[in-house]
Amino acid sequence: MIDHYPGRQGGSPLILPRLEPVTWRKWQRGAPLTQTQHARWTVDGFLVHQELFTAAELACFQEEAARLAEDARVLADESAITERGSGALRSLFRPQAHSALVRRLMQDPRILDIVEYLLDSPVYVHQSRINYKPAFRGREFWWHSDFETWHHEDGLPGMRTISVSISLTDNTPYNGPLLLIPGSHRWYVSCPTPTPPDHFRASLREQTVGTPDEGSLRRLAERGVEAVTGPAGLVTFFDCNTMHGSPGNITPWPRSNLFFVYNSVHNTPEAPFGGQPPRPAFVAERRDFTPLGRAGTTTPA
Amino acid sequence: MIDHYPGRQGGSPLILPRLEPVTWRKWQRGAPLTQTQHARWTVDGFLVHQELFTAAELACFQEEAARLAEDARVLADESAITERGSGALRSLFRPQAHSALVRRLMQDPRILDIVEYLLDSPVYVHQSRINYKPAFRGREFWWHSDFETWHHEDGLPGMRTISVSISLTDNTPYNGPLLLIPGSHRWYVSCPTPTPPDHFRASLREQTVGTPDEGSLRRLAERGVEAVTGPAGLVTFFDCNTMHGSPGNITPWPRSNLFFVYNSVHNTPEAPFGGQPPRPAFVAERRDFTPLGRAGTTTPA
Repeated sequence: MIDHYPGRQGGSPLILPRLEPVTWRKWQRGAPLTQTQHARWTVDGFLVHQELFTAAELACFQEEAARLAEDARVLADESAITERGSGALRSLFRPQAHSALVRRLMQDPRILDIVEYLLDSPVYVHQSRINYKPAFRGREFWWHSDFETWHHEDGLPGMRTISVSISLTDNTPYNGPLLLIPGSHRWYVSCPTPTPPDHFRASLREQTVGTPDEGSLRRLAERGVEAVTGPAGLVTFFDCNTMHGSPGNITPWPRSNLFFVYNSVHNTPEAPFGGQPPRPAFVAERRDFTPLGRAGTTTPA
Repeated sequence: MIDHYPGRQGGSPLILPRLEPVTWRKWQRGAPLTQTQHARWTVDGFLVHQELFTAAELACFQEEAARLAEDARVLADESAITERGSGALRSLFRPQAHSALVRRLMQDPRILDIVEYLLDSPVYVHQSRINYKPAFRGREFWWHSDFETWHHEDGLPGMRTISVSISLTDNTPYNGPLLLIPGSHRWYVSCPTPTPPDHFRASLREQTVGTPDEGSLRRLAERGVEAVTGPAGLVTFFDCNTMHGSPGNITPWPRSNLFFVYNSVHNTPEAPFGGQPPRPAFVAERRDFTPLGRAGTTTPA
């Protein structure tokens, strides 16, 4: 298979144009988002919804995330990733394996309708996790395009994938919010450093491979950087190739979110393009590409 | 000499009340700050001035800081502290040793009038530096009270010291702004970890001793945390014991400031209370306590 997005092979970084559409379906009446939202998606590569879920639903999600973080069986699993230094829980991958509520939320029509419309395709979940950015000691995530990693480490051939983040805590400017570079999704920035063997374990704690160079970032960020801030319950949709990162958190307030990655069933993984064996199933789905169906309501009756 | 602010001797952290006044002189007509500013100083422990200097003056400060950061002789000096990892310039101590402009600015009446009024005392400079928080790679400063360090590592007996920070770049919420805990200056939080020998070199890069515990911080921060943001030229006055920190900077925009510490001539250093030998003169003045006189204008004629 031809690799349209080369990288991880040494040399100098390249900025290449994106080959796939950003918005796979034109806006029309009856779409699950407004015409303005649809246009913003195309231009910016992300979209923030303030009120997709009710306060009662949000409270359920919060309780469930807290419950999982204290479940000894969950914590003992390899899908539970702790912070360097403090040992606090940083990410729990595949939370749906431990939670019917998360399984339902993943299939909520309010999310799926938008994702499937923008990708014009049925989808399955490529990756899912709960991110816990602890108070005081939450470390930064440096700038990266998720697609770059999913292409080179998981084998996703092209850009037909959308991430959805549901904030479980207030996102202030100071507790390590998501920062996005608007418009960056239109460009692929190659990262020359080759992938070391068994790289993924360290990368889940701190990413050092698959991070773009400062010169490319400066060019992408000429229009500025935007932060996702607001009360808990924000739902952020962002394109797989939108450059993003988040600062560390030294405040007494944690920052947590649920994170689902929806991939088109027409974009299922090949052998990883970076040359190493694929990452394990809890990080990247490679077997079950069954299109997601719609779940009922996510609140208990 | 009795140590009224014990610490660095193991055991559990203590929160003790501050013994010295915050504001040494009552407000009266003719004071160099308004009655509201005076009251805010007492309650919050900091004060931000938006327009103390003109745009032309600010441009001079910025040019001077840039010039110093590229002067090979300056960079070769032990007072030039680089970032762990990247080697970029993080702090230049005692910049007045290399710059007549900085010497004049340090003695500017617009700063000195306020500082001397609040401390009701002539002052000298205990420490001064330019902080360069580089774009992309500027590391965080964790929460700390400067007084805790100046007491245990430099021997300042009590709290009669004011820091002044002049921002040389825009301070956005995302390029690692100064975060302050309002009201925290009224409490002394002891830090039990003993000072290791020759600790100061590592501490100028990343502070690990002299940092308060999370429980104490949570109590101090019940009223919240405030950030200093705004265009370049902000002048922040803060009490020596106001708890502060700043997040890392992953944005493409650096954050720099000039930083002067004014100590009352009635509060000159004793032997360090932490039991180690004093830090070198470029970090903490211990010889020349001549009260500062007033400089003329800081802009070239």
